[in-house]
Amino acid sequence: MAQVGPVSPLAPASFPDLPKIAGVDFATHAAAIKYKGRDDVMLARLAPGTSVAGVFTKSSTRSAAVLDCQAKVGRKSDSGAAILVNAGNANAFTGQKGQTTVEEVTRALASAIAVPKERVFTASTGVIGEPLPPEQITNAIDTLISNLSPDGLGDAARAIMTTDTFPKAASRTLETSGGRVTIAGIAKGSGMIAPDMATMLSYVFTDASIAPEDLQALLTHATEHTFNAITVDSDTSTSDTLMVAATGASGVDVTDDEGFKDALTEVLKDLAHQVVRDGEGATKFVEITVTGARSQGDARTHAMAIANSPLVKTAIAGEDPNWGRVVMAIGKSDAEADRDKISIRFGDVLVAENGWISPDYDESLAAEHMKQAEVRITVDLGLGISAQTVWTCDLTHRYIEINADYRS
Amino acid sequence: MAQVGPVSPLAPASFPDLPKIAGVDFATHAAAIKYKGRDDVMLARLAPGTSVAGVFTKSSTRSAAVLDCQAKVGRKSDSGAAILVNAGNANAFTGQKGQTTVEEVTRALASAIAVPKERVFTASTGVIGEPLPPEQITNAIDTLISNLSPDGLGDAARAIMTTDTFPKAASRTLETSGGRVTIAGIAKGSGMIAPDMATMLSYVFTDASIAPEDLQALLTHATEHTFNAITVDSDTSTSDTLMVAATGASGVDVTDDEGFKDALTEVLKDLAHQVVRDGEGATKFVEITVTGARSQGDARTHAMAIANSPLVKTAIAGEDPNWGRVVMAIGKSDAEADRDKISIRFGDVLVAENGWISPDYDESLAAEHMKQAEVRITVDLGLGISAQTVWTCDLTHRYIEINADYRS
Repeated sequence: MAQVGPVSPLAPASFPDLPKIAGVDFATHAAAIKYKGRDDVMLARLAPGTSVAGVFTKSSTRSAAVLDCQAKVGRKSDSGAAILVNAGNANAFTGQKGQTTVEEVTRALASAIAVPKERVFTASTGVIGEPLPPEQITNAIDTLISNLSPDGLGDAARAIMTTDTFPKAASRTLETSGGRVTIAGIAKGSGMIAPDMATMLSYVFTDASIAPEDLQALLTHATEHTFNAITVDSDTSTSDTLMVAATGASGVDVTDDEGFKDALTEVLKDLAHQVVRDGEGATKFVEITVTGARSQGDARTHAMAIANSPLVKTAIAGEDPNWGRVVMAIGKSDAEADRDKISIRFGDVLVAENGWISPDYDESLAAEHMKQAEVRITVDLGLGISAQTVWTCDLTHRYIEINADYRS
Repeated sequence: MAQVGPVSPLAPASFPDLPKIAGVDFATHAAAIKYKGRDDVMLARLAPGTSVAGVFTKSSTRSAAVLDCQAKVGRKSDSGAAILVNAGNANAFTGQKGQTTVEEVTRALASAIAVPKERVFTASTGVIGEPLPPEQITNAIDTLISNLSPDGLGDAARAIMTTDTFPKAASRTLETSGGRVTIAGIAKGSGMIAPDMATMLSYVFTDASIAPEDLQALLTHATEHTFNAITVDSDTSTSDTLMVAATGASGVDVTDDEGFKDALTEVLKDLAHQVVRDGEGATKFVEITVTGARSQGDARTHAMAIANSPLVKTAIAGEDPNWGRVVMAIGKSDAEADRDKISIRFGDVLVAENGWISPDYDESLAAEHMKQAEVRITVDLGLGISAQTVWTCDLTHRYIEINADYRS
């Protein structure tokens, strides 16, 4: 494993038992792209007719693999499909060569499993700016195919890790009116996002049946309140990728099924929270909720301004209920706020209201809340009815240590 | 002095000799608002007819004093004027009481020096959310007035310090076609900006003659390439204030004088750089230039995205020529970029071009540049002719120490 330090204190107590997802087989392999003594490539083979949806980094310098996947998701197809991911080299900012590698890898895998190359989705995570010779991946394809098994999702979670301090997975099984369906997914990423190593990748699989365009719409919506509502350090990778594959092998149609929508959102939220819990140097998991905004966009802008403020994040690291920094962060964001209508809570403790400290405020109670490993900050703007919750972590010495060390 | 640690390693070698500015008298006093054993209030009395211009924080939670000053600058007046600043309490986020304090202080000072209260400008810097009883300031007014002297600008620079590790001042004298004029100013601020203590304040004085609306236009323009082109941690104070007062006492009209415009811009740039050099925990002074942008706005957005990226700033702290993080920062900003046209230089070393590492790149040369106390990063986007330079500092353990310590 590529641990850069001890396991995050915010990690879940144990890795979950993962269900099999009918219609998907997994394999991993040690291709020695960068890491020694661990698997660093994972393959998921998807049954014919699987719907594939995806959301990707909006970076204008995004990698060749991202551009390739973006052009392919959400399309109807009766053929099989595959997802191939490597860790150790991001194949990002590698010019024309990077694109050639993606083309050669997708062509080789498509040929080996007899699917159109439009149905092969790749991702690479690791160092950027270094060439990734296609052979490093294509040489592993035969071994990967021969090892395919429905049980390999847990190993896949480990094979895609880079600076992660723990593997990340989540699942839900639900009964719908049409029968039982299962969802299971994995993620990696620990800075949000160190382009050196810590791109966020997540792959979610389900045996439910749903058309590609419906799956894409569902994913896009669910992302806004899950993966797009987390931040570690405000930085954005050139390779961030989140994909959902619905094999349909259960025969249960989940189109417009609210239960499925909720369960998928829960899996995504669980995985997104695990990414924050592995934030570089994190010692606190922080939930920030902004209510009473004039618009959804305003609620989101304020919540992210608070979550990304270095001064708020260092105050949380110092267990300081420093509501003045929260006021500052609200003020600096471009969204609407009225200084004299803002109220702020740390945990359940009302700290400020009506543009000033609350008359009943007892700092010792707020300080007590700040000592917890999970901190909640709630801001009511008093202007409207829109709300947004986002999640982040604190900013600590360990973040500086991890990121100021010379690349070696 | 309110030093929170040793003097910044980036501080100028010595405090400058400051010229007198005809038409302005200064006084400072130890009012014991928070600090003991140092002056913490400064008064500048301005001659009748002085033009006063200002630019202020855009925070939506800005302080009562900022709102009061904003309403008063740029107006014609034949009467005298005054600027009164205190350190130790920001009188920000103090609700209606904060506004009452500003009103009482301005009324008392206006009466004491016989000017309209529309000509009294105040500012407060320090802890936010704590009431500032007006007597703490008004009780000092008589003493301040009795101590007024044309020599007090250096003492004023010290009286407005909070977490600054050194006092900040700069001046220029220039010959115009109409005669000699002098400009001198002071600044404070070390985080950009910790609302606890480190609001940025700057006051610049000149004996030149210029109409208030012309001075305001000149200041607004000059700010874009000086104080609005610096960042320490992307955070913004509720009280940031920059004011310029032109007494006209030299009798030299500088309307449309390019030399005066340049000299004023130089003084502002000098002061702005000193604020960055005192950035919390800074060990490197960093100049980031983006050229070849499609628009001025794009150049600025990219430059600020690089300057504010925690990953870029920690790489600089670690003396790591990590151009991948620069690519990432360009990618995440909303402004236009073409991955395959970007070139990046550290100092004079061409690192990346045409979407990939430069074939001639020698990392040891770039690493050598990163060891300097002054680091230059230049990015050419290859899209247009617009450019912007901004200045920042690195992100170090000391920043975390300063800002994660419990407020006590």
